Amino acid sequence: MEEKYRLTGLKLKIYEVIFESDTPEGKYFDIVLLVSIILSVTVVMLESVQAIKIGWGNWLVGLEWFFTGLFTLEYLARIWVVLNKRKYIFSFFGIVDLLSVLPTYLTIFFAGAQSLLVIRSLRLLRIFRIFKLARFIGESQNLTTALKASRYKIIVFLTTVITAVIIFGTLIFLIEGPENGFTSIPLSIYWAIVTMTTVGYGDIAPHTTLGQTLASIIMIMGYGIIAVPTGIVSSEMIKLKTKEKITTQVCPHCLKEGHDSDAIYCKYCGGEIN
Amino acid sequence: MEEKYRLTGLKLKIYEVIFESDTPEGKYFDIVLLVSIILSVTVVMLESVQAIKIGWGNWLVGLEWFFTGLFTLEYLARIWVVLNKRKYIFSFFGIVDLLSVLPTYLTIFFAGAQSLLVIRSLRLLRIFRIFKLARFIGESQNLTTALKASRYKIIVFLTTVITAVIIFGTLIFLIEGPENGFTSIPLSIYWAIVTMTTVGYGDIAPHTTLGQTLASIIMIMGYGIIAVPTGIVSSEMIKLKTKEKITTQVCPHCLKEGHDSDAIYCKYCGGEIN
Amino acid sequence: MEEKYRLTGLKLKIYEVIFESDTPEGKYFDIVLLVSIILSVTVVMLESVQAIKIGWGNWLVGLEWFFTGLFTLEYLARIWVVLNKRKYIFSFFGIVDLLSVLPTYLTIFFAGAQSLLVIRSLRLLRIFRIFKLARFIGESQNLTTALKASRYKIIVFLTTVITAVIIFGTLIFLIEGPENGFTSIPLSIYWAIVTMTTVGYGDIAPHTTLGQTLASIIMIMGYGIIAVPTGIVSSEMIKLKTKEKITTQVCPHCLKEGHDSDAIYCKYCGGEIN
Amino acid sequence: MEEKYRLTGLKLKIYEVIFESDTPEGKYFDIVLLVSIILSVTVVMLESVQAIKIGWGNWLVGLEWFFTGLFTLEYLARIWVVLNKRKYIFSFFGIVDLLSVLPTYLTIFFAGAQSLLVIRSLRLLRIFRIFKLARFIGESQNLTTALKASRYKIIVFLTTVITAVIIFGTLIFLIEGPENGFTSIPLSIYWAIVTMTTVGYGDIAPHTTLGQTLASIIMIMGYGIIAVPTGIVSSEMIKLKTKEKITTQVCPHCLKEGHDSDAIYCKYCGGEIN
Repeated sequence: MEEKYRLTGLKLKIYEVIFESDTPEGKYFDIVLLVSIILSVTVVMLESVQAIKIGWGNWLVGLEWFFTGLFTLEYLARIWVVLNKRKYIFSFFGIVDLLSVLPTYLTIFFAGAQSLLVIRSLRLLRIFRIFKLARFIGESQNLTTALKASRYKIIVFLTTVITAVIIFGTLIFLIEGPENGFTSIPLSIYWAIVTMTTVGYGDIAPHTTLGQTLASIIMIMGYGIIAVPTGIVSSEMIKLKTKEKITTQVCPHCLKEGHDSDAIYCKYCGGEIN
Repeated sequence: MEEKYRLTGLKLKIYEVIFESDTPEGKYFDIVLLVSIILSVTVVMLESVQAIKIGWGNWLVGLEWFFTGLFTLEYLARIWVVLNKRKYIFSFFGIVDLLSVLPTYLTIFFAGAQSLLVIRSLRLLRIFRIFKLARFIGESQNLTTALKASRYKIIVFLTTVITAVIIFGTLIFLIEGPENGFTSIPLSIYWAIVTMTTVGYGDIAPHTTLGQTLASIIMIMGYGIIAVPTGIVSSEMIKLKTKEKITTQVCPHCLKEGHDSDAIYCKYCGGEIN
Repeated sequence: MEEKYRLTGLKLKIYEVIFESDTPEGKYFDIVLLVSIILSVTVVMLESVQAIKIGWGNWLVGLEWFFTGLFTLEYLARIWVVLNKRKYIFSFFGIVDLLSVLPTYLTIFFAGAQSLLVIRSLRLLRIFRIFKLARFIGESQNLTTALKASRYKIIVFLTTVITAVIIFGTLIFLIEGPENGFTSIPLSIYWAIVTMTTVGYGDIAPHTTLGQTLASIIMIMGYGIIAVPTGIVSSEMIKLKTKEKITTQVCPHCLKEGHDSDAIYCKYCGGEIN
Repeated sequence: MEEKYRLTGLKLKIYEVIFESDTPEGKYFDIVLLVSIILSVTVVMLESVQAIKIGWGNWLVGLEWFFTGLFTLEYLARIWVVLNKRKYIFSFFGIVDLLSVLPTYLTIFFAGAQSLLVIRSLRLLRIFRIFKLARFIGESQNLTTALKASRYKIIVFLTTVITAVIIFGTLIFLIEGPENGFTSIPLSIYWAIVTMTTVGYGDIAPHTTLGQTLASIIMIMGYGIIAVPTGIVSSEMIKLKTKEKITTQVCPHCLKEGHDSDAIYCKYCGGEIN
């Protein structure tokens, strides 16, 4: 954020309003932005409802162009104002900001493209800015760290689930067959996923006793397997909480960190700490 | 509760019976009240069953007025007896007590309003009073504290889920379209919620291979995402439990910490602690 | 188990075979018993399948009487052999043993009573006897202790869920009404339970936009609420595990238990321990 | 892996390529193998889709024989190259490798046997070899250790669930009966499993008030019971994590314990440890 001090006059003013939320104007801008996003996403949704489109179609198209104009202006202002333009344009929010306005222009050439505008809802993630920024980023980094620390466990877990689902899907296809609605292996695998995740639509369901027995096994397995990701995330989160008990103190002798709060001597060099 | 000693005679007697459950009369009153609430809620429910209403309609209306009379008397007695009337009237239970009798009087003007009487079931939360009050409030405060401590994590989690559900709902709308039952984006978002929470009604279900592939991804995501709130609540509860157990007390003799809350002597040097 | 030494001769022999599983005969008896229970429950199940009943009805009835005879003999032998007859008869397994044979005799007077024989499956819980008894009872006591320690939390949780389900059920009844399948409040409450527990049969589902919005809220709530019992049980189990770190040592001075494994002095009387 | 040094020339070369993934050739081979497995499983899946089979049937059969030839060659090469042939052949992957090619040869005699080829997907578990082997095996052993440590708890849990499901299934059969779709006890037990695991297909659902009340009880039980496996796995994982972190080492100077595994100096007295 230091780079902002190389901005002056209007650019600095706009930078503070658009990119920050410490000043009253910045906060006000963020709230107006969020409301606009919610309204524009609602407009896109309403346009997909046939009954509403017939009566209010022109109004909705008008509103859509209005919000697109607004967001286009905002996007251009962001590019104009920011110092490291390339970094913003290729950042997550930079790409989302662009994709949020493109579909409306595409509707000139392709009818129906406006549904893509719901990508704007990704901009809602900016909501964290309005509340105390740091705390939220802290929370979401907590979650992210917990997920990252568990990524190998999650890959092991997912590979096992996918393998299980392929085997079970094929078994049910062999047992039930096309005459009971299991018309192909991919569809049967889809059914196995629906069953193991305990979603259970019921559009396809086993009719033979053997098929229902296999389904029962898959269900009880799925019921138990859900404990694995839960256990992973819980233990990571508790680990994170425990880590907080570790002081942020740095050893004055070897400059290493990570000491327990009850440590008297540095565990790396043996020097006395604070 | 000290304020009650400013009451005398009948008012004090009624206060003890209605608001407390230490005396035999208070306990007896609470049980009668709970049974009345359950009975009156049952009456409201039965009245909504067409077959029963035809045969017993008049009896049910009679009972409804009887219970409403009872609860109105109780409500007025509470207001009469309590010292800080404004505080009671605008407290959670004060409002619930009022809303529990109002709908019956409304039926004089609007037919059908009696269904609103089920709001009486909120009065069931008074059940905690009958058992040892303190313990229950402790438990429920434990839960509340755990939820409160996690509120930012929960907002992060909910915003992510809602954004995901909007994006996925629109994708499935574009893939499946109205011809497969996904008639609008709001309905498709409803379907995405039904799928991600693993509810899976099956009233709307994808029919194309691409749609079923997307559904599979949503299901596996939902299956994994459920680990996040569980991890949050688990780690908060464990934190609470750990906090309770260890005092922050320091031994005055050897200055060591980490004593159990029931310790009388230091477990390291044997000296007496506080 | 000391009482068994007051038995002699045949009675002692039968006691050891029927009630214990330390001797080879006892183990053999237990395995035969378990297989008989599984077979007899299977017979009851098969009898309920119309196609099998037509072809094999007489065989199944015969087998049913055979197993009933066997279990009746075993029940009488247990009563004859045990010293404290009243204690056995009114114990959990004593009542289950009786209920396991009664329905067959009832079929003489009432057709169809044989379905009640599946109560025999409760006898399967005797399976723990065959494996190392102590370990299993330890495990199951662990679970029971964890559940017991959380019973107030569970009551608070259940009361909240039931109140929520009554309120939501009534709301959906008012919103959707009988024309969309929500014919009465009890049925609507049933639907709310189906939705909140993420079961989602789909036999009844909301059709109006408002109803689907309410359903979405219930689903996301249910998706989150499931974290509460999980958090409760997890934290109890971790607490149990932590407790194991506490030694079973008794203070030689004040005879109190519950010392940490790193304790040098008794935390209650200050005396030195071991 | 030491045994490999008793191989020479071509055999050693092939061994390193097929069985290891440290050399560039070994890594390249593993990737080609994984892609082949995914392609061949896809071919088997596509062949089960009627519409695709009609147009591309011959191509798919050709590809199937191509992949089978490839995997047969690989299987024979593995046997030729490995020193302890019996150990490989009867290992998990040895059996899977054989079962991955057998069904194609069986199709000469039995039409339809090719569906069994999806067993090849089990070979996907070789994916862990491509990434850093040790880390993955570590993760998956963590999971396996956690599951193994809980096996008695899981047996207790499963026996309880199965007994509950048999009892509830019979009760619903008695309440609803064949006229509401509950045609036999085994089918009713299947329904009870579908309900308790919160899958809820909805192909069979209770229609009577009593049946729906029982279903509600099963659902709320199932909703709560899911906490038990989750609690088991969570507490095991946290136990594992804690174990890793703290050494059992004692400081030789002050004899205090509880040092982190990366500690070089005692955090209490500053003396060097081990």
